Amino acid sequence: MNLNEIYNDLERGVSEFIDLEKIKNLIKNYYEKGEVFYVKAGFDPTAPDLHLGHSVILNKMRFLQNHGAIVQFLIGDFTAQIGDPTGKSATRKQLSKEEVLKNAKTYEEQVFKILDKEKTELKFNSTWLNALGAVGIVELTSTFSVARMLERDDFTKRFKEQSPISISEFLYPLLQGYDSVALKCDIEMGGTDQKFNLLMGRTLQRTYNTGKEQGIIMLPLLVGLDGVNKMSKSLGNYIGVSEEPNSMYAKLLSISDELMKEYYNLLSFKTTKEINDIFDNIKNNTLHPKVAKENLALEIVERFWGKDLAINAKNEFDNIHSKNEIPSDIAEFNFDEEQWIVKLMQDTNLASSGSEARRAIKANSVSVNGEKISDEQLKISNGEFIIQVGKRKFAKVIIKG
Amino acid sequence: MNLNEIYNDLERGVSEFIDLEKIKNLIKNYYEKGEVFYVKAGFDPTAPDLHLGHSVILNKMRFLQNHGAIVQFLIGDFTAQIGDPTGKSATRKQLSKEEVLKNAKTYEEQVFKILDKEKTELKFNSTWLNALGAVGIVELTSTFSVARMLERDDFTKRFKEQSPISISEFLYPLLQGYDSVALKCDIEMGGTDQKFNLLMGRTLQRTYNTGKEQGIIMLPLLVGLDGVNKMSKSLGNYIGVSEEPNSMYAKLLSISDELMKEYYNLLSFKTTKEINDIFDNIKNNTLHPKVAKENLALEIVERFWGKDLAINAKNEFDNIHSKNEIPSDIAEFNFDEEQWIVKLMQDTNLASSGSEARRAIKANSVSVNGEKISDEQLKISNGEFIIQVGKRKFAKVIIKG
Repeated sequence: MNLNEIYNDLERGVSEFIDLEKIKNLIKNYYEKGEVFYVKAGFDPTAPDLHLGHSVILNKMRFLQNHGAIVQFLIGDFTAQIGDPTGKSATRKQLSKEEVLKNAKTYEEQVFKILDKEKTELKFNSTWLNALGAVGIVELTSTFSVARMLERDDFTKRFKEQSPISISEFLYPLLQGYDSVALKCDIEMGGTDQKFNLLMGRTLQRTYNTGKEQGIIMLPLLVGLDGVNKMSKSLGNYIGVSEEPNSMYAKLLSISDELMKEYYNLLSFKTTKEINDIFDNIKNNTLHPKVAKENLALEIVERFWGKDLAINAKNEFDNIHSKNEIPSDIAEFNFDEEQWIVKLMQDTNLASSGSEARRAIKANSVSVNGEKISDEQLKISNGEFIIQVGKRKFAKVIIKG
Repeated sequence: MNLNEIYNDLERGVSEFIDLEKIKNLIKNYYEKGEVFYVKAGFDPTAPDLHLGHSVILNKMRFLQNHGAIVQFLIGDFTAQIGDPTGKSATRKQLSKEEVLKNAKTYEEQVFKILDKEKTELKFNSTWLNALGAVGIVELTSTFSVARMLERDDFTKRFKEQSPISISEFLYPLLQGYDSVALKCDIEMGGTDQKFNLLMGRTLQRTYNTGKEQGIIMLPLLVGLDGVNKMSKSLGNYIGVSEEPNSMYAKLLSISDELMKEYYNLLSFKTTKEINDIFDNIKNNTLHPKVAKENLALEIVERFWGKDLAINAKNEFDNIHSKNEIPSDIAEFNFDEEQWIVKLMQDTNLASSGSEARRAIKANSVSVNGEKISDEQLKISNGEFIIQVGKRKFAKVIIKG
């Protein structure tokens, strides 16, 4: 156990810390005195369909669990109870207690692929926020000023633009902050876009004299498979954590080498030292980037599906991939009339003779546009065709006539 | 029963109506169909020591009770429960349930001198606001925007001045407005300074689809005895509704003729027509203003203490007052040496001879600066003195020596 290495791993991929010193001390205390510490992160009760983007925070929490953390997995079910008194807004989703519990179950099924169940406490903020009652909520709102709330970037912008901000929107950061009061957490985790609300927890812990003042770990939004936009279900550039292993593996193999570096940092459980070695080796040409990508994909698929299914996914992928692999520098031939396959194979250098062409067709090793052929008399016309013989020989044929 | 006369009386002294048409219709409906209507006014649970300033609203409510209203006498005890989580502000008064009920009792003792107990419902807003719970409060705040709340005059001003507004201050108008939702009142009454909050009740009744949309009656702040500042305990220019009858009567007799007109409008139960007659008669010199003032004082003292004590107060006042009354056009005499009282009375025309002066002293009807004298040898020097003989004869004497 080398504290400096742990600190190194702690900082990997993190966008911003508040009170990093305290966070390091919590880990140090754990190793020196065996004291655990509490790490909170809030999750939406309405969207339990997680993708790898969500796992970025879970991964860091798992890392912290390895070094003394008890995770407070907070399901923000309080707001799911909020209705619309005007009956006008159709957008607000109100959830019953049963739906919330059902969603929580779905969360559990997903997150315990990453988190250590023994070091995780499932929490529902309706517990303490409902207990605050009407009086407690008014007291809570008395601790913060309108002007300071308007300092939150999006509020500032909307206020300037005269786009309406409902007063309840001023309450949500306070409610999230109060969660930290109730949970007495030592660290809160969230996206960089949550900075204002995360700081609110720190402020309110002080205001309510909890004796705590949480450290904050902010993580970036994971870029999606396209390498451009943040990973999101609606953009289709995502990998669901419940997505089946073959699809998960194939999608991971599709990312660019550039994105692979980021994915290693945010999604791999390897140490920072190990990851640096991998990229050093790629640079020195002692490791092929594709192998590094395969290893990352294997690690991630294994996390959610186990080793056997991960290896299976790799084999399946290799199998399909090698069969269908069409080199990008394939030779192209143009014709202006119908062509007989045996003659065509000779003309495109796929066979050195008519008899070699016939043997190949009989051996079932010739395909046209991915379809095996068996008819030696086949004639093709009018179109673009990829003719493949065996695993390695290809020709592109364009026939106009 | 003449509706137009009732409408006339309704409008007397009112600063502003919202939806006067509706309010008139409520009265009309009462007389035509016997339907009662509900009139709400909120009172502070911490200050049950009422003065005539507070009675302005009560008087108008009593008037409405005479014409179909059930008064919802609302004690705003919800806010009395609000504590200060920071423990910093020493100003906030938190009241126990017991204290609130005790204060309510004190209110009852005072207000049923004015209101008709049979047509009054005592309400506590903690009933429905506590029942809203944390969720209900957040829902309530979702109905109104930050920008619209900042339109309230004092918020606009403070926001511009960068003087902090706590978010809870944005909740109070909503809570007051929600009282109108819960009470389903037809009319709310308040001071002109409450216009924003009164309108909030109307807005929220619509938002919450109560089927009601309250009319509003705003009344002016009563000017205090000084004729300048609003009546207030801290300024000392007030008459408490529990103040003893003699003091109440004497204070009312002290007001200016100008202020008397306003007090008639806001404090008398006479009809507008009767009041107009009084001031017409004063104008025509067929009624002395003092008599009008005495009648007003009698009416008000009688309201709180009954007829006997009111008449008693008047007699007591007249008695003391006539003894001490010093005309404003009293003759002034200057001397530069010590004066013997018997000689002085002759020199100032208070006695036509020395023996008349002596008789008056013996008869105990001579006073110096309000003190009866009995010593014929009295000499006075150095100072200002009012010498009074009997009830009507006065002289002002200034002696320098």
